[in-house]
Amino acid sequence: MGEELTIVGKKVPRWAAFEKATGAARFTVDFKLPEMLAGRLLTSPVAHANILKIDTSRAEKLPGVEAVITFEDVPNKLFNPNKMDMCLFDPSGELPDMYVLSDKARFVGDKIAAVAAINAGVAEEALVLIEVEYEELPAVFDSLEASNPGQPRIHDFAKNNIALTFPCLANRGDVEEGFKEAHVVVEQTFKSSKQHMCQMEPTTCVADFDASGRLTIWSMSQHPFLHRRKLAELFDMPVGMIRWKTLHIGGGWGKYGSFVAEPVCVALAKKAGRPVKLEYSREEDFRTTETREAHIMTGKIGVRKDGTISALQNKVVVQGGAYFTHNSNATNVAMGCFASLYTCPNVYEIADAVYTNIPVSGGCRGYGNPPAMWALEQLMDMAAEKLGMDPLELRLKNTKKVGEFGPANYALETSTFDDCLRLGAEKIGLKEKRGGRREGTKRYGVGMAMFMHVSGSIGATQHRNVHLKFNEDGTVNLAAGCVDLGQNIHGTISQIAAETLGIRYEDIIIHTGDTDTTFFDQGMHASGGLFQIGNATVKGATELKKLLFERAAKMLEAHPEDLDVKDRWISVKGSPDKGVSVADVAKDAIYNYEDDHNHLAAKGSYSPEDNQPPVGASFAEVGVDTESGEVNVIKLVIVCDVGRAINPQTVESQLEGGASQGIGYALTEDYTINPETGYLEADNYITYKIPGAADMPDMEIIQYEKPVSTGPFGAKGVGEAAMVPIAPAIANAVYDAVGVRVTDLPITPEKILKSMEAKREKI
Amino acid sequence: MGEELTIVGKKVPRWAAFEKATGAARFTVDFKLPEMLAGRLLTSPVAHANILKIDTSRAEKLPGVEAVITFEDVPNKLFNPNKMDMCLFDPSGELPDMYVLSDKARFVGDKIAAVAAINAGVAEEALVLIEVEYEELPAVFDSLEASNPGQPRIHDFAKNNIALTFPCLANRGDVEEGFKEAHVVVEQTFKSSKQHMCQMEPTTCVADFDASGRLTIWSMSQHPFLHRRKLAELFDMPVGMIRWKTLHIGGGWGKYGSFVAEPVCVALAKKAGRPVKLEYSREEDFRTTETREAHIMTGKIGVRKDGTISALQNKVVVQGGAYFTHNSNATNVAMGCFASLYTCPNVYEIADAVYTNIPVSGGCRGYGNPPAMWALEQLMDMAAEKLGMDPLELRLKNTKKVGEFGPANYALETSTFDDCLRLGAEKIGLKEKRGGRREGTKRYGVGMAMFMHVSGSIGATQHRNVHLKFNEDGTVNLAAGCVDLGQNIHGTISQIAAETLGIRYEDIIIHTGDTDTTFFDQGMHASGGLFQIGNATVKGATELKKLLFERAAKMLEAHPEDLDVKDRWISVKGSPDKGVSVADVAKDAIYNYEDDHNHLAAKGSYSPEDNQPPVGASFAEVGVDTESGEVNVIKLVIVCDVGRAINPQTVESQLEGGASQGIGYALTEDYTINPETGYLEADNYITYKIPGAADMPDMEIIQYEKPVSTGPFGAKGVGEAAMVPIAPAIANAVYDAVGVRVTDLPITPEKILKSMEAKREKI
Repeated sequence: MGEELTIVGKKVPRWAAFEKATGAARFTVDFKLPEMLAGRLLTSPVAHANILKIDTSRAEKLPGVEAVITFEDVPNKLFNPNKMDMCLFDPSGELPDMYVLSDKARFVGDKIAAVAAINAGVAEEALVLIEVEYEELPAVFDSLEASNPGQPRIHDFAKNNIALTFPCLANRGDVEEGFKEAHVVVEQTFKSSKQHMCQMEPTTCVADFDASGRLTIWSMSQHPFLHRRKLAELFDMPVGMIRWKTLHIGGGWGKYGSFVAEPVCVALAKKAGRPVKLEYSREEDFRTTETREAHIMTGKIGVRKDGTISALQNKVVVQGGAYFTHNSNATNVAMGCFASLYTCPNVYEIADAVYTNIPVSGGCRGYGNPPAMWALEQLMDMAAEKLGMDPLELRLKNTKKVGEFGPANYALETSTFDDCLRLGAEKIGLKEKRGGRREGTKRYGVGMAMFMHVSGSIGATQHRNVHLKFNEDGTVNLAAGCVDLGQNIHGTISQIAAETLGIRYEDIIIHTGDTDTTFFDQGMHASGGLFQIGNATVKGATELKKLLFERAAKMLEAHPEDLDVKDRWISVKGSPDKGVSVADVAKDAIYNYEDDHNHLAAKGSYSPEDNQPPVGASFAEVGVDTESGEVNVIKLVIVCDVGRAINPQTVESQLEGGASQGIGYALTEDYTINPETGYLEADNYITYKIPGAADMPDMEIIQYEKPVSTGPFGAKGVGEAAMVPIAPAIANAVYDAVGVRVTDLPITPEKILKSMEAKREKI
Repeated sequence: MGEELTIVGKKVPRWAAFEKATGAARFTVDFKLPEMLAGRLLTSPVAHANILKIDTSRAEKLPGVEAVITFEDVPNKLFNPNKMDMCLFDPSGELPDMYVLSDKARFVGDKIAAVAAINAGVAEEALVLIEVEYEELPAVFDSLEASNPGQPRIHDFAKNNIALTFPCLANRGDVEEGFKEAHVVVEQTFKSSKQHMCQMEPTTCVADFDASGRLTIWSMSQHPFLHRRKLAELFDMPVGMIRWKTLHIGGGWGKYGSFVAEPVCVALAKKAGRPVKLEYSREEDFRTTETREAHIMTGKIGVRKDGTISALQNKVVVQGGAYFTHNSNATNVAMGCFASLYTCPNVYEIADAVYTNIPVSGGCRGYGNPPAMWALEQLMDMAAEKLGMDPLELRLKNTKKVGEFGPANYALETSTFDDCLRLGAEKIGLKEKRGGRREGTKRYGVGMAMFMHVSGSIGATQHRNVHLKFNEDGTVNLAAGCVDLGQNIHGTISQIAAETLGIRYEDIIIHTGDTDTTFFDQGMHASGGLFQIGNATVKGATELKKLLFERAAKMLEAHPEDLDVKDRWISVKGSPDKGVSVADVAKDAIYNYEDDHNHLAAKGSYSPEDNQPPVGASFAEVGVDTESGEVNVIKLVIVCDVGRAINPQTVESQLEGGASQGIGYALTEDYTINPETGYLEADNYITYKIPGAADMPDMEIIQYEKPVSTGPFGAKGVGEAAMVPIAPAIANAVYDAVGVRVTDLPITPEKILKSMEAKREKI
């Protein structure tokens, strides 16, 4: 197969590249409907309060205001904005604890009321006229404190603010025995941070009820079909009465795996009787929407003398914020990844999801895996040091082999950890650079971290469909229910369809973003898009090719099995003079007067029987200024086994993008809550520092290809993987440079200096 | 089957009834795009001229003008705006004689140039600034004159302005022999008129090229798929680079069986590089777009002594106007209908399509059949009188029997002409009212005419597809490529789908109007929609039901063949306690974690193997004022064998609407060209008189149901039928009242008085 590929494996332009580059692409923020109103949110200025009274009368009287809504105007129903209860095998852990609008404020930014008016100015004026009488309550912002007795209770049902306690699904063996077998044991507490997704497009939603009461909603949901069903349940509507549409989306990274603006927007449109666009300001986006899941992990590792891991333990406190959202799912993934990167017979993990009066968290690129690796991959280096073993050697000792299980509980078909580790070590110059050179106040070091992610969700139904039909010119309309958030899923499945059908990339006309005209698709999460939708596409395109060949065979007086198709031309094997164009066959199916007409079309349905994880290793070289505490990343090497790169440029941008998000996570993206007021300190791109182009190190991205038999053309999912190992690799490199380890993210200069100070005092 | 129908046969609300009644429905005229320009046409003020020079420079300099186009900016390609060459078995008669914009004006209203500007005011101002230097040529307006030697030549290739001479495809026997056998022979020339379709919504089109050069077009085309292909050929684009969309349409009646505004609009959008909406004024709609095909028919009938018809002859001059458009097709239908209403062994018909300097004609409801019946059904009455036989008896003598062929060349499965004739005669009181009472200056009379139309086109590919998919709540998305012009095809196929699937009418969510997301559909013409798309729907829904039952059978542990479905509930025959809802099965197919997922979906493809014609008779009672010449229709009875009325309300409005259009055609709709200037005299709704509610007679519509085995639930097409016989029935009634026969349409008071005068003089 490999030799003959003509489109798969090529750097063709990503989907809608030209539209996006020229500014022609239309995003939800650009979208307008006739008679559309501007919606604006009123959020809580206090961290914890009962609302004694909301008086909307002055706002309602303001000319141009068409609707003001409070908790009284929304369904009196608790829900969880996360969509996972729509698809999990066991959704009992998805606690419903949120109202569309609440009569109690649980964090600064909690949704209290909303306005729809003829324009944004009027809507914002009206917000000021809503009088809310808050009865302020004591608040708690720290997850460790919050579960102490005597702390303010955030939800009535959650004693000591513990929403849920749950063990890891991959717990196994006897961890006490394991630690007994160990030659060295290391235990350490690590804190990860609530990183923002920092998508370009601010959260926006448009909702419109038509004359018959049917709702059309335009939003950036990553799960239009699941969210449609969820919205239908929330608003007591039949699913068929909702049409969910998606335009271009300016990034998501998991943010739109939950409802964001949708329920409020729908409630506004319903009350106003006109279409409403609800748009969040950047500050609201920071304060009110979900961020990366954050955990406090007390990890413990036991290693035998020979370097094999004998036990792993992890006690997790989930810093979930004021509502449950993804707490159980993201944490299950975190614990699952902690448990499964290395071969280890004894694992015990348990988590407490704890409520605090801070903004909610959700699922961000990596979904639990980055916090887990932040802990595990530092523990590995700590154990190696204690054992006196090279950390590379320690890792090589424990990598999983073919047949062992990945995090999604499928046996590994390939094992390329060792190759990736060795290749990366060589590229960064691990041996030569270890221990670090010194230069004035600068100290240099190198570090590494391994990773393994998934190609699709764990424990959830994964159901994908695509539909393909030929036009009479040999082009194909490919309808898919998936969502392109910038990851180029539309482009890669188009490549797969074109390759399978023997036509050109530009012959595929993709249609997505509409629940009425596409088939069910699970949605975009867990790096499952390409692996699963790609497979559905192969199935559908293969079926369509069969129909094409059947018709072509009649026209050519040949057997279908003797046909071949390449670059739009169907030929008979061994008869070079016999052939017909794909277009002529497609046209014949529509217009041939002597035959039954039958528009050539086929559907591909896929629900996975496998889930082969992307794996690899990353290596960082850093410089640390011992005077300022500043860390700069000099070089990053990422080796990722991607199975097959359908579009190497797309894979590269996924890996590079993930790495840059990892650098921000590691060093600069600082999510701090003011301990007095509960306000988020940095709520815009000036105060919240994400790495820019100038902050990027020399980056070497190695796409290691070892195709897997169950992936489309051998591909695995790579959307999240590269984000996962960056922070621990940098932390390990910092330790190599200056001998201190910062265990709570981000690694700021202050923390470096403080740690160095502490180390000096200790000595 | 008949007894168990729960949705088919019911007067459920038509598709989008509520949206249309409340004004919420969005038509092309309402449609807006960001940055959209207003397009306006410049048409010729002279009937025949060479264009020596067009200077657009002043128009182009006007601020706000974005594009001005002339013949130099459009494809240098002759085409025929009629789409039939895209689907005819033999398209050689579809003469291409038109440019998108011409450098020669051939009628007042011919398209010369167009402007796109930031608004309509600027565009109209710019039109005035375009300087056209016309070299006027002598013009000819009369089709009989035009073919005389020495007349101005309108197209270079057409000697004596005869575009094409063609015989009837149904010619048979020996017509000379037939006339020899005849006891009486009647010959008469009849002129029919170029009736306007008078759709509510003025012709509008929006065209938009996206950043990648892909064109989206919104228009009221009745044939989006055929027109897309035609447009692609005209503009040298791959079909896949065009997406054709359809919004609500304010009537069509055949007008949009041709390109109307599309090519000019596309050329404007291309040049302007921005979306353009080209909107015709009502006057332009009258002058520049197609009207009903009109003919001058010299018909001749021979009848044996026993009343059987021995020969039919028809020499036709097509009053086609300045371009060919539908001339051959509409005339083929006219001749075919003339040849096939009655049993007759000897038929000879031949047609000359003649160019004149008048506006073009196209295909309007009935498409050739009304002019043919205008001639034939008067010839029948004339022959009956000459033979001394009751005209009802003469008709009953000659009606076709089961097994004989209809106009579409398929054997009749049923023959209900006699039933319809007798029932109608009884309802109008034919016997009692014949010969007419007198009252002052008023004379009363009754008349009749028979009709037979088609359920689909003749001699063209007829390929229909629908696609159905279940949502998890048991609703179904029904995707169809057909176009609803107000005829409620969307509603009737929804009824058919719901009936077949055992769910409710409101469970069907129809999606149409988009070539990207629906399958190939031939388009709306020849009353073929319901018969053909209905059959495709039955096929698709039956397949979907099979899939539904297969899954339900697993869930119920039963055999699929033992299942039954009614009102959303699937039950096991003989086990009343065993059952499952349709919604639960549909949901299971999407979400069941223990099974292969497979979104339940199916396609129905149909290309007809039959074409059972709607048949019937209409009866008119009229009063004629012998002093003013005014005719008023007192009562109309229409008996139509519809096969099965899927929605009796829809059928009623089709028959009633057809009849009212027939009254206008008969009496008031006067298409007159000024013989000096070539201007159309009546070009708006004040001067062009269509019947209003106050003009309507007492109307009795009888839906005679005799299901045919090849129709969906037995239905036939009825969209055009009722229009066909109205004018001759009125003419025959007028003759019964006052003894004069007006042979050229419409029957105006002036013509009545003139005929009465002539008759008096003759006596």
